[in-house]
Amino acid sequence: MENAKKIWVKTVSLPHPSLKNNTADADRLMQELKKELKTESVYIDFNLLKKLPDYIRQLNYNVSSVLFKEMDNWVVLGIKSLDDPKPFLGLSVDLGTTTVVIRIIDLLTTKTVSETSFNNPQIEIAPDILARIHFADTNNGLKTINRLIIDELNNQISKLCDPEDIYLISLAGNTAMTHLFMGLNPHWIIREPYIPVINNPGVLKASDLGLIVNPSARILIFPNIGSYFGGDLIAGILFSGLHKKEETAILVDVGTNAEVVLGNKNWLIACAGAAGPALEGGVTRMGMMAGPGVIDRFSINPKTGEFNIHTINNLKPKGICGSGLIDLAAHLFISGMIDIRGKFVPSICGDKLKEKDGIKYLIVVPSVESSAGDDLIISQVDIDSLIRSKAAMYTILETITMMVGMTPLDIPMFYVAGTFGAFINPKSAISIGMLPDLPIDKYLAIGNSSLEGATIALTSTEYMEEIIKIRDSITYIELNVNQEFMNRFSAAKFLPHTNKSLFPSVICHS
Amino acid sequence: MENAKKIWVKTVSLPHPSLKNNTADADRLMQELKKELKTESVYIDFNLLKKLPDYIRQLNYNVSSVLFKEMDNWVVLGIKSLDDPKPFLGLSVDLGTTTVVIRIIDLLTTKTVSETSFNNPQIEIAPDILARIHFADTNNGLKTINRLIIDELNNQISKLCDPEDIYLISLAGNTAMTHLFMGLNPHWIIREPYIPVINNPGVLKASDLGLIVNPSARILIFPNIGSYFGGDLIAGILFSGLHKKEETAILVDVGTNAEVVLGNKNWLIACAGAAGPALEGGVTRMGMMAGPGVIDRFSINPKTGEFNIHTINNLKPKGICGSGLIDLAAHLFISGMIDIRGKFVPSICGDKLKEKDGIKYLIVVPSVESSAGDDLIISQVDIDSLIRSKAAMYTILETITMMVGMTPLDIPMFYVAGTFGAFINPKSAISIGMLPDLPIDKYLAIGNSSLEGATIALTSTEYMEEIIKIRDSITYIELNVNQEFMNRFSAAKFLPHTNKSLFPSVICHS
Repeated sequence: MENAKKIWVKTVSLPHPSLKNNTADADRLMQELKKELKTESVYIDFNLLKKLPDYIRQLNYNVSSVLFKEMDNWVVLGIKSLDDPKPFLGLSVDLGTTTVVIRIIDLLTTKTVSETSFNNPQIEIAPDILARIHFADTNNGLKTINRLIIDELNNQISKLCDPEDIYLISLAGNTAMTHLFMGLNPHWIIREPYIPVINNPGVLKASDLGLIVNPSARILIFPNIGSYFGGDLIAGILFSGLHKKEETAILVDVGTNAEVVLGNKNWLIACAGAAGPALEGGVTRMGMMAGPGVIDRFSINPKTGEFNIHTINNLKPKGICGSGLIDLAAHLFISGMIDIRGKFVPSICGDKLKEKDGIKYLIVVPSVESSAGDDLIISQVDIDSLIRSKAAMYTILETITMMVGMTPLDIPMFYVAGTFGAFINPKSAISIGMLPDLPIDKYLAIGNSSLEGATIALTSTEYMEEIIKIRDSITYIELNVNQEFMNRFSAAKFLPHTNKSLFPSVICHS
Repeated sequence: MENAKKIWVKTVSLPHPSLKNNTADADRLMQELKKELKTESVYIDFNLLKKLPDYIRQLNYNVSSVLFKEMDNWVVLGIKSLDDPKPFLGLSVDLGTTTVVIRIIDLLTTKTVSETSFNNPQIEIAPDILARIHFADTNNGLKTINRLIIDELNNQISKLCDPEDIYLISLAGNTAMTHLFMGLNPHWIIREPYIPVINNPGVLKASDLGLIVNPSARILIFPNIGSYFGGDLIAGILFSGLHKKEETAILVDVGTNAEVVLGNKNWLIACAGAAGPALEGGVTRMGMMAGPGVIDRFSINPKTGEFNIHTINNLKPKGICGSGLIDLAAHLFISGMIDIRGKFVPSICGDKLKEKDGIKYLIVVPSVESSAGDDLIISQVDIDSLIRSKAAMYTILETITMMVGMTPLDIPMFYVAGTFGAFINPKSAISIGMLPDLPIDKYLAIGNSSLEGATIALTSTEYMEEIIKIRDSITYIELNVNQEFMNRFSAAKFLPHTNKSLFPSVICHS
């Protein structure tokens, strides 16, 4: 039954040994698995081999085994009886620069057992990728920064389950994080011509990386396409199914970079560009990551001009996250408080608008209502920065669609990944011209597609080939920041755009 | 040039990275090696991967690499410049129960660099296989006996070369020794139905076995056919070329067991049986392993009856080894001092014949001429034992040839492996009916064929498939010790045989 589902757990009955059939224990098991898997290449992990003779006799030759694939060869990693209460577990990891999410699944049922997220401990070295890469180049730096993530992963895993039960791991992250995780020096990733150590790490022994799990465990590390297009995106494509659909669709993941893939079952093109900082809470003074008390939704009553603020957990506001900021910008524009250039309009802002050191700012939450002990404000500098980000985002979308003779308005389906996708209001993003003016139902938030992609790789034996197929079929476009690109970027620096006909749905109230 | 020779060292020039070609370092190297090797499956050892970016830049993208094959996939284990004075070395191991021989070769030139032999340190546990297997079953026994051989190998390797230079290892031994070497419990090998843990260990990471060599090094462990037919024999077949010849030939390796393979390029049959103890110096009172002062050749002047004794290094005799013993028995028989039943003939032995506790014995070397401080003697018990061994050997040869409708006299070519083959005088072995009465030039001593086979596996990329082909094409015959076998054995217990017509060349002088 479970075999029909193409899971990594296979059950076989071995013929008992006899003088007429004195094949070795390992070869006896391999023979039956070869039949079951219809393959010629099965081998047994060396750690398991040592325990095999006792195990298979204890199991009376009825063996439930967990396997994985290495370079097209099946490798047996563990065996037990079908009714053993100890499960075969899998671990999927979304290795973010800021946040790491891990999920434990039961490899037999493919159900999630538990999940947790935690800060990438490399943040203590530096929050940004560039500084971490420089740190890795210092004396013992690579080892130090590598141990940080490995130790914390081991720590978190041990809180969720018996690490011995984990046989398969699947990890997706950007190219730099993946390198630091493997202990590979990402030195050349940030230096022209931007060369990773490896594009396709494939399947490794988890113990070789310092992971404390079952000694036979293997880890699949999602491949990258280059220094700026990582395994997290490949996992996202795998999860979205973009690469298997008739209809062309786009997948956008906005983290530190905006990463974009456009395509269908016949072709995939991708590009990436810096578009994110303003959206991760890294730019505005009151910007922060989503969390309790952070403004995640914002609107302005068109009649009264009143600010409607929603915070996570309905606490007193202490800051604003990306989705709140996009809502804020959209409503400031729609209400006429900022103009098409994003500049404050004093006549409409009224006494909420202040100025300090020659820079105008708007009080979003007065100090008495905030938990920050101070006014929550947005300044002209903040808005200018957001506009550059949104213009970059739109220009990237315009550029990639143009490459295949489309426009952003021709995109049939728009998947938005990550926290960004989960929380932004597409209507607000359209209002400021960040996302194209498509019907709202064309936008689909697909959640943490990196984690989901990493997870499904552990739920079926079929995905491993697909991952390589995705990687090899993507045409990665280096964004050529030439005069034409800059012209399009400049046109996108208006709200919603110089060319208003691109955003027919956006109506400014002012 | 060296690539044409199909050695494991391959040299490639990589295209330099550029913005138009920003493939990762590892993938860049793999791409060129794939072209060079005409394969799709090349990967890079994880230890090497960590050092790769610095290495290939130092080498200015001209890379001499050493590879091996794992489950049909090529794996890159080391790279250097072609003119680097540090060599890529290979290590071949003949893992004997008593003696271990290791050889270092240069993988580029395939020439031998150095060689040494030493006692298997497991002798301190027990000299015989059975006792070692029982010891492995005791508390911590397996670990202890495993560490003995691993530690001594590491010690011996470090005396011959810089262990870091060793990338490839090839090891051939009998099934029990191979299991103890890998840390696999040979418990079931000696218990009906005689099941090894594994028949075909394939290629493993040397570091996983505790070997202190290059951290990327791989070890090929020769496969076995069963508990009583080990990788040493497979290596011997590989070296003899038995499996590729038109003409049928036989390969005999006499160690603790007599192992026999008969066949040609179309078929191979094999069997093994206890025939050895008397020949390894393990039975007679004066028997010992070959060494300085040991009698290795013996004859009797047919006219004077004088004993002509030759010792290794021409020292005073202290004992006798297998080849000397066979010479001794042959000449005692030819001179009439023993009869066709192997019994002493007092009238011819004269005053050399003594008796103690009812057992007759013959003084071979009087105490004044020996370095043992005592007479060197051979007793009736010793001769009876030798006759049982030689009868077993002949019966095995008779049985295996009979299986394919031949007789021992039909054997076109007779390869004799090991120390036994190197030192015995085939004429003497024929005289006592141990080996069939073939023309002397049909006997070819091929030396330590286990070591030679293990060595050639490191000299060409073609042998790995051959090893598996040999293993899979052998029909292993369990010697069925039934009444018919016992009848043939009884007939062979005469000198040279009950049926004298089988040994026309043997003329007894008495």
